[in-house]
Amino acid sequence: MRYTLPEDRIPTAWFNALPRLQEPLMPPLHPGTREPVGPDDLAPLFPMALIGQEMSGDPWIDIPGEVLEILRLWRPTPLVRAERLEKFLGTPARIYFKDESVSPAGSHKTNTAVAQAFYNQAEGITRISTETGAGQWGTALAFACRQFDLECKVYMVRSSYDQKPYRKIMMETWGASVVPSPVADPSSPGSLGMAISDAVADAVQRADTHYSLGSVLNHVLLHQTVIGLEAKEQLVLAGETLPDVVIAPCGGGSNLGGIALPFMQDATVRLVAVEPMSCPTLTEGSFEYDFGDTAGMTPLLPMYSLGHDFMPPEIHAGGLRYHGDSPIISNLVKTGRMEAVAYPQGKTFEAAMMFANTEGKLPAPETGHAIRAAIDEALAAKETGEEKVILFDYSGHGFLDLSAYDDFMHGRLLDA
Amino acid sequence: MRYTLPEDRIPTAWFNALPRLQEPLMPPLHPGTREPVGPDDLAPLFPMALIGQEMSGDPWIDIPGEVLEILRLWRPTPLVRAERLEKFLGTPARIYFKDESVSPAGSHKTNTAVAQAFYNQAEGITRISTETGAGQWGTALAFACRQFDLECKVYMVRSSYDQKPYRKIMMETWGASVVPSPVADPSSPGSLGMAISDAVADAVQRADTHYSLGSVLNHVLLHQTVIGLEAKEQLVLAGETLPDVVIAPCGGGSNLGGIALPFMQDATVRLVAVEPMSCPTLTEGSFEYDFGDTAGMTPLLPMYSLGHDFMPPEIHAGGLRYHGDSPIISNLVKTGRMEAVAYPQGKTFEAAMMFANTEGKLPAPETGHAIRAAIDEALAAKETGEEKVILFDYSGHGFLDLSAYDDFMHGRLLDA
Repeated sequence: MRYTLPEDRIPTAWFNALPRLQEPLMPPLHPGTREPVGPDDLAPLFPMALIGQEMSGDPWIDIPGEVLEILRLWRPTPLVRAERLEKFLGTPARIYFKDESVSPAGSHKTNTAVAQAFYNQAEGITRISTETGAGQWGTALAFACRQFDLECKVYMVRSSYDQKPYRKIMMETWGASVVPSPVADPSSPGSLGMAISDAVADAVQRADTHYSLGSVLNHVLLHQTVIGLEAKEQLVLAGETLPDVVIAPCGGGSNLGGIALPFMQDATVRLVAVEPMSCPTLTEGSFEYDFGDTAGMTPLLPMYSLGHDFMPPEIHAGGLRYHGDSPIISNLVKTGRMEAVAYPQGKTFEAAMMFANTEGKLPAPETGHAIRAAIDEALAAKETGEEKVILFDYSGHGFLDLSAYDDFMHGRLLDA
Repeated sequence: MRYTLPEDRIPTAWFNALPRLQEPLMPPLHPGTREPVGPDDLAPLFPMALIGQEMSGDPWIDIPGEVLEILRLWRPTPLVRAERLEKFLGTPARIYFKDESVSPAGSHKTNTAVAQAFYNQAEGITRISTETGAGQWGTALAFACRQFDLECKVYMVRSSYDQKPYRKIMMETWGASVVPSPVADPSSPGSLGMAISDAVADAVQRADTHYSLGSVLNHVLLHQTVIGLEAKEQLVLAGETLPDVVIAPCGGGSNLGGIALPFMQDATVRLVAVEPMSCPTLTEGSFEYDFGDTAGMTPLLPMYSLGHDFMPPEIHAGGLRYHGDSPIISNLVKTGRMEAVAYPQGKTFEAAMMFANTEGKLPAPETGHAIRAAIDEALAAKETGEEKVILFDYSGHGFLDLSAYDDFMHGRLLDA
């Protein structure tokens, strides 16, 4: 059963978590002076509107009409009750997923890409540089830049660049220029941290260029809150009050923040981050100030981190391989408001296949992590007989990740 | 603007074109005797329920509840007004598309796959053989067979098998077994006609196995009429009465039949088939009795054909490379009720890119043909100032066809 909202029920303001945190967020620090950064420090990289959102104390921030006009191409996204999966599991739980895979780029990433492209264009920027790991963020930004006539330069983690030619083609279809990273070392498979260094270096060198990040930062999570705001309204349509648990995969934290933050003040709702055991930032990292990139060019952020020189093993869930995590998500985990679990990759593909075979949708490997946790919650509810209401974010489709499914089916997957 | 129907407005009966044709359909002939075939001749290949539908004179045929239960995973599909494309073209025309890309397999093919799997299982069949060209049909049948616990064996045209590994993996994810065709000649790139021969030979050899075809036959077009029936209702939601023109790509004719047949008795509505110039069945073929396959094992069908030994050039719009065409579609073209146009491939990719850049959806190359024709209709309306209402079938997404986009962008596409 799908629950759709009419187009005029698309949220018109973003939900800002900052003024609602139990403990205020610690400020980002300048990489050189280690003093708190101010708006001017960030101005070479971001438009002032986004810098303002990064630090805003306003509980709600209006979504510009120009952004809404494009979001309406696919929003509001459906909320779906996974009844065939429930039956297959024999669970009394009711499982809902918010389907962000219907966006142009095939994932939630497009929500913030459009907003970021808009604010940059509004402040006279004509070119944006960024990095991409698995490729979902680069695709989303390429689409968004095309809508606002901006040039888009994407530094793609080299191992992804080599393994995922389709992602590159998709970015090029929307007019982006894509190069493998690290640019300076063609023998390195690269990492997201290295690609961030490349993209930041590009932006600081050119006056016409800003940098854009697809996760981690406060304004990115802010833009993603349309997911949870819609889901909350759609659950009411479905006859529910609140979910018992909200689940999402977590790499940098943007889709998790998007679906979970609008529930942060609902005390009965458990919030669960799901990460891969091969990159266990929240479950095994330490909370500290660390750089967002490998080269140490970005401000220091207060977050759970595995160290900015962490090199994750080459696994397929490329979008979840970041060494750090969103400061907001880190804050919620540190204060106990949010839980975090880690799964080995084999378990997540098993869950993704179960979902594809019952619900007919082929998930991105990242999304498979949320499905695994949702299934385990549903199986626990079967043991206890509890009619638990489970909501998870279906963050993206897996049509461009089929080689990973092939590896899983043929036992070639690193089960880390 | 998207127009969605609630789930309880999914059609509960299929629209049967057979009793509504101006000239009755000529019967299929036995490949040996050249006498009209009866139900018993077809029994080794198809369940009796489908044979009955193939020849039925009933104007409406009920959709079984078991089929509806699965169709509801993605139906009713959205009708979308392509306002950003309209603006880009500066046309007074209103362009609507019916989005069949949202199905599990990513195209309209799933509509009939589910029905065929159901009727086969209901009559005790445990295994189905089929062929696939571009891979969309094989993917759809693999999904459907998994829903009814049927084994699925897919003979995939060898050139596609080699060029589209992702399609094969997707079929395997749903449990199908996929082999390249022709089985007997590994040096041949294959053709849809050859793969049909392989699949039919498989089915006649085994009592537990039936054959399944994804296009051409009457019952296949019948199952696809949910597309047009929903679209008709959604156009009313959008404030329209009837469209001026209904457009779809045409290979074997199933998505075209699906969207166009429910409008066949609305005399003011033009119906337009769009095919590639490299396989111009309707525009340059001759109307005759011909075999559906290369080896001459299938009944002879009254249809436009390029000859059952026609070998299309290797182009990317794999789904439109069939030598023949649906008898119903052929009948409509022959009697003048339906028009047919052919486009060179470059023009269709140009249109597909224009669509991706304005509407944000990346179409299958087959779908690009309909988009090309819709754009040309809209540009003609711009010349005349006519507020034409254009409806086309967005038959599938292009996420598994990105190498063709790459070839187009880099000038490597055979523009035939």
